Amino acid sequence: MNLSKIKEPVEEELKTFQKRFSSELSSKVALIDLITKYILKQKGKKVRPMLVLLCAKMCGQINDRTYTAAIMIELLHTATLIHDDVVDNAKTRRGLASINAVWKSKVAVLMGDFLLSKGLLVSLDKNEFGFLKITSEAVKKMSEGELLQIQKARNFDATEETYFQVIKNKTASLFQACCVLGGSSVVNNKDELNALSSFGENLGIAFQLRDDLLDYTGRKKLLGKSTGNDLKEKKFTLPLIKALETAPKKESSHIMKLIKNERESNFETVFDFINNHGGLDYTIDKINEYSIKAIRQLERFPTSESKSSLKKLVSFISDREY
Amino acid sequence: MNLSKIKEPVEEELKTFQKRFSSELSSKVALIDLITKYILKQKGKKVRPMLVLLCAKMCGQINDRTYTAAIMIELLHTATLIHDDVVDNAKTRRGLASINAVWKSKVAVLMGDFLLSKGLLVSLDKNEFGFLKITSEAVKKMSEGELLQIQKARNFDATEETYFQVIKNKTASLFQACCVLGGSSVVNNKDELNALSSFGENLGIAFQLRDDLLDYTGRKKLLGKSTGNDLKEKKFTLPLIKALETAPKKESSHIMKLIKNERESNFETVFDFINNHGGLDYTIDKINEYSIKAIRQLERFPTSESKSSLKKLVSFISDREY
Repeated sequence: MNLSKIKEPVEEELKTFQKRFSSELSSKVALIDLITKYILKQKGKKVRPMLVLLCAKMCGQINDRTYTAAIMIELLHTATLIHDDVVDNAKTRRGLASINAVWKSKVAVLMGDFLLSKGLLVSLDKNEFGFLKITSEAVKKMSEGELLQIQKARNFDATEETYFQVIKNKTASLFQACCVLGGSSVVNNKDELNALSSFGENLGIAFQLRDDLLDYTGRKKLLGKSTGNDLKEKKFTLPLIKALETAPKKESSHIMKLIKNERESNFETVFDFINNHGGLDYTIDKINEYSIKAIRQLERFPTSESKSSLKKLVSFISDREY
Repeated sequence: MNLSKIKEPVEEELKTFQKRFSSELSSKVALIDLITKYILKQKGKKVRPMLVLLCAKMCGQINDRTYTAAIMIELLHTATLIHDDVVDNAKTRRGLASINAVWKSKVAVLMGDFLLSKGLLVSLDKNEFGFLKITSEAVKKMSEGELLQIQKARNFDATEETYFQVIKNKTASLFQACCVLGGSSVVNNKDELNALSSFGENLGIAFQLRDDLLDYTGRKKLLGKSTGNDLKEKKFTLPLIKALETAPKKESSHIMKLIKNERESNFETVFDFINNHGGLDYTIDKINEYSIKAIRQLERFPTSESKSSLKKLVSFISDREY
């Protein structure tokens, strides 16, 4: 399964999207123009605009409103990635040096704010207030989710319940917004939009579960992602939470002590602990569970190439190696 | 002249504002609640909400829409201050430790994003799309202005013209938004709103000119602002720009060399250079010029306590020592 196959039903529309997105990014300030050109070179997977376009096409005909939605979402997503890199002091993004690495943090934070306001203005200019509300709610949830995760990490307090609360907010809310916006650019049917909302949320949960699994099992890939970051930041993700819950108390408290001591060399020990106590298997089960839930939401839509691509996207996301 | 005198005509309304603002900030995420309580302790001068309220009251009766505008503006302003402190690695804000100093940068960036989205949602919930457009434009201009300033600093390129372009965008645009929002919450008269827009812009320019002057002449005050920061960051502000333009070429290039070499001990030399070549006097003249422009815009409004307070606010802002 690869993304270019999944993209096929909206290949032309993605090109139109890309053109409009690039022209949205231009500015009369030379430094902004320079940085946006650089951003356009950092070619991401474009999962979110693809999701907007596929959901719209599954419901009917892609139109001007669909592009507005896709551009707004991609602007906001790009803004949050730039802020993330500042915050994590990340040196690379999408195979190229990060904005903060090239232009320093100050420029990166400002650039993120600029793209955020651009994203808002795109929908305000088109009087798409409904779109804006959906997206602002998503942005709010994203920061709430991240802050909740940090709060829990600092208290060494994590349960499966709060974990799912965190990932629903920080990741699934934007996927959900993509699907609802794509659909509502074309139809106004409440049941269909609810199905899309649930599809997006379950897909987003599967996406983040896979991400958190790969942080333990993935090897360093071309894209520059490495393993063990969550442990370093004391983020308790599902593999670890489950193992801590399943293992004998004594063993769990030993591992907790190791994590609090934060020696880097602990990764192998923690990995073995998680593996031995079913943390990885349980996470894979959950990825499958949420993937199935997502796909089930598509049943109500008539057969189409876009629908079949959305199904493939679920598999792609839940099997991906990067 | 002091602020509590200026506040008098809207004293009660500022209390109502403060109550509503506090309740807007509450969240079910404990960490967010903790930080917002801390933010409420960092008592700022509240110049911007005061400006919204005074402009509204000068035009008519303060109402629910006025409070929405004031809350939105204060949320966005607080968000940008938090991001500024991350970017400048500032340790204090309003006499207390900064958010990034207490909770680290990651939390501060996320908290800024959270407050930004809250600010948007406040106006979306009330269907105040016009307010939102005015404010998003201002936020976009603020980041554009800051980025333009950085671009110019990196090229050691500064003219009086670009300086005014920078400060109009980065500072005056939000003052302008405050005045227009305050007025338009009450009246719909184009001429009055244009006058308020121009009042706010000129006031904002005077405010930033004074800020830039104080960066050379101000002594370290209770509020913790210190001098020489602009020079350290190679920001060319009006006092320096004017002196470089006025002084004999040879002297100017000597000073430029000193600045490029970035020795901290250069501050005294640069200060004397600016003072000897009229940079400080010229800046003071400009502050007066823009203050008078601002006050002239108020002529069309009938006599009232609020109007007289707005006039006093202009004097306060252009004479302030911190």
